[in-house]
Amino acid sequence: MAVITGLDVVDVRFPTSRDLDGSDAMHTDPDYSAAYVTMCTDDGGAEGAGNGYGLVFTIGRGNDVEVAAIRALETHVVGRPVPDSPELLADLYRRLVGDSQLRWLGPEKGVMHMAIGAVVNAAWDLASRRAGLPLWQYIASLTPAQLVEQIDFRYLTDALTPDEALEILRRAEPGRSERAERLLERGYPAYTTSAGWLGYDDAKVERLAREAVADGFTLIKLKVGADCADDERRLRIVRDAVGPDIELAIDANQRWDVGDAIDWVRRLAPYGVRWIEEPTSPDDVLGMATIARAVAPIEVATGEHVQNRVIFKQLLQAEAISVLQLDACRVGGVNENLAILVLAAKFGVPVCPHAGGVGLCELVQHLAMADYVAISGKQDRRVIEFVDHLHEHFVDPVSVIGGHYVAPTTPGFGARMHADSIARFRFPDGPEWVS
Amino acid sequence: MAVITGLDVVDVRFPTSRDLDGSDAMHTDPDYSAAYVTMCTDDGGAEGAGNGYGLVFTIGRGNDVEVAAIRALETHVVGRPVPDSPELLADLYRRLVGDSQLRWLGPEKGVMHMAIGAVVNAAWDLASRRAGLPLWQYIASLTPAQLVEQIDFRYLTDALTPDEALEILRRAEPGRSERAERLLERGYPAYTTSAGWLGYDDAKVERLAREAVADGFTLIKLKVGADCADDERRLRIVRDAVGPDIELAIDANQRWDVGDAIDWVRRLAPYGVRWIEEPTSPDDVLGMATIARAVAPIEVATGEHVQNRVIFKQLLQAEAISVLQLDACRVGGVNENLAILVLAAKFGVPVCPHAGGVGLCELVQHLAMADYVAISGKQDRRVIEFVDHLHEHFVDPVSVIGGHYVAPTTPGFGARMHADSIARFRFPDGPEWVS
Repeated sequence: MAVITGLDVVDVRFPTSRDLDGSDAMHTDPDYSAAYVTMCTDDGGAEGAGNGYGLVFTIGRGNDVEVAAIRALETHVVGRPVPDSPELLADLYRRLVGDSQLRWLGPEKGVMHMAIGAVVNAAWDLASRRAGLPLWQYIASLTPAQLVEQIDFRYLTDALTPDEALEILRRAEPGRSERAERLLERGYPAYTTSAGWLGYDDAKVERLAREAVADGFTLIKLKVGADCADDERRLRIVRDAVGPDIELAIDANQRWDVGDAIDWVRRLAPYGVRWIEEPTSPDDVLGMATIARAVAPIEVATGEHVQNRVIFKQLLQAEAISVLQLDACRVGGVNENLAILVLAAKFGVPVCPHAGGVGLCELVQHLAMADYVAISGKQDRRVIEFVDHLHEHFVDPVSVIGGHYVAPTTPGFGARMHADSIARFRFPDGPEWVS
Repeated sequence: MAVITGLDVVDVRFPTSRDLDGSDAMHTDPDYSAAYVTMCTDDGGAEGAGNGYGLVFTIGRGNDVEVAAIRALETHVVGRPVPDSPELLADLYRRLVGDSQLRWLGPEKGVMHMAIGAVVNAAWDLASRRAGLPLWQYIASLTPAQLVEQIDFRYLTDALTPDEALEILRRAEPGRSERAERLLERGYPAYTTSAGWLGYDDAKVERLAREAVADGFTLIKLKVGADCADDERRLRIVRDAVGPDIELAIDANQRWDVGDAIDWVRRLAPYGVRWIEEPTSPDDVLGMATIARAVAPIEVATGEHVQNRVIFKQLLQAEAISVLQLDACRVGGVNENLAILVLAAKFGVPVCPHAGGVGLCELVQHLAMADYVAISGKQDRRVIEFVDHLHEHFVDPVSVIGGHYVAPTTPGFGARMHADSIARFRFPDGPEWVS
């Protein structure tokens, strides 16, 4: 029997803060980083093609803590069978989140949970590679019962039972192949955040917004929340530049309290805003619900910092969000994201994944596409975030053409990085950091 | 100017799982552990009496991850002025929770936040040692304005503004010295969990319950949640042993979903239960509120796993809890616990701190006593958890007599451990682990 021989973990950091790429109201100087994990196997084959690759995305300091957290999981992984089947994937996930000592550090949140997510994602990468399928198609190759088996329903059953999940997944079974065909033909709509980082000056924002429209994007997102007059000016500039038919979204990155959020969004509303993202703490379900009621019809969007399915469940129960922005690297990997996708389908809320950072675009495209093909079965009002940074470091980088993600066809989940990128940006001893 | 010269961090673990001490429905084999931190200074004096001592409590695996997380904070601490004043304590707390890169790992939850809590608590230990006061009296020596300055009101202002906090603290100013006197005379009521660990057999539970009453305790807590018939039998045995006048509480340690919790608690209600603790996920504010409505007048209690003030705020807003069980080592240290205590005072909910583990009794007694003297000003329906394990490893162990915590009079916060205990139980190289 083939076994996992090790978890190889590397601290990789890109010095993005030098250009203020990724700067927002709360994260003023991010160095996009990855705690990068390889699930090594004794039958991984030439150049590790049959191993599994995953990562935790961080923004610099603390990436070393994630490395330590991933290493703490070795005991549950090394020496175990290679997880190349749905049964073994479900078993691995349960073993990792079920560790009765490690769960004290969460439970199911923060550093430890993100580390679990990276290992779980590496396992799904491995399984889909070995099946010869991109992850989105691998997920869509599983039966509704096999998908339900991946989900931990603990703390969910007041909102979603296993039987309801099975029913939702069965409803989406007819039409799977037609939707997969359509995806391969047309891709999946993207929106861009590259135009609107808070550290960019007005001229740069205007130029990038015009370029985004020329590139085929129909939704552009701007960072807000540091200064209201600045935000108004930037929104006016962009609205004037792109015309009335392009959707605009704004993102406060948790900057406000509830009252501030309501006042600020009302001031920006005249420029035509589809959603306000992360208006306040990602933990504040009740606050988010209050904001949603006050700023409607502007939608509240959140998710990149939502720690687990329990908070998402409540955001949906409280009608606090109209756009669910799951993240590939925040929760407990593919298994927990399947729970979140089924919850969203049950509540009829569109999923528009968070991306950007390093590797997030590569990863989340698979989750959005699996949602369309095999879970919600829907694509309307759904877009995947796109940020055009750092893709060159990935073996299978995303391709966005005409404002659409091209559906990936190479096997796996997309997190594998080039060996020379890892060597160059390894922290603190890689040449980019030593110099 | 005196400066902090280093954070010394040690992984200390006690093999408590050998006797099933501390076993509950979710944590079946805990090895009580501490990521133990010494804030070293250049003027700490003989035997480190002027340094600061803090810890993160964990239950075994993952204690090494907390050590790594504390080390990641060195950059904000080492070389800075010794935090021996309210201004410097407030500044240190803001610097630690405000790191724009580290906050990605939370924000304000899990491994990183608990590490921040340990460092913040070490600073308060240092400040109160240098003031020559036990922490509870040091807190009670600060003015209402100085206390308000310690609190981060971000995400709180829809429930508690700085002006409201000031008003609450000013209302408790008269009578501070009388209440301190009373504490020194009579102590603070305790309740015991030592009788009811899930791994103990019926005869041991009955014997320990009788001993608890003989020792002066008037509230006994039992672990429940693994098997309902077992729970009924154990509750009946204990109720028969202690008679009708002793309060009983039950603790499910997050074992149930919402529906299960309601059914199970209703089955146990006939034995006379004051509160049900952690009936479900500590993240599930809405679920906890549903349970609270369904099981009233039995109270819902929670807090040991509540990650920060934002979740506590919502538990109070939603009327989900009637007993707030703050923990000294889960949130961002004394500063965030001051926020939580003032929130509880505003909503009129009694605080009954979580303790046990290793060092938690030593720490939380100070927070409960500061609450009585300077914040809520109240003591009715308030009790501090007591578990009689591992106190011998502390330089200033708690003293519980006649069912009451004796108010500590030695300077500091109580987390300092004996050097020989640290050496003996250091993981993995101390003699207790090598053998």
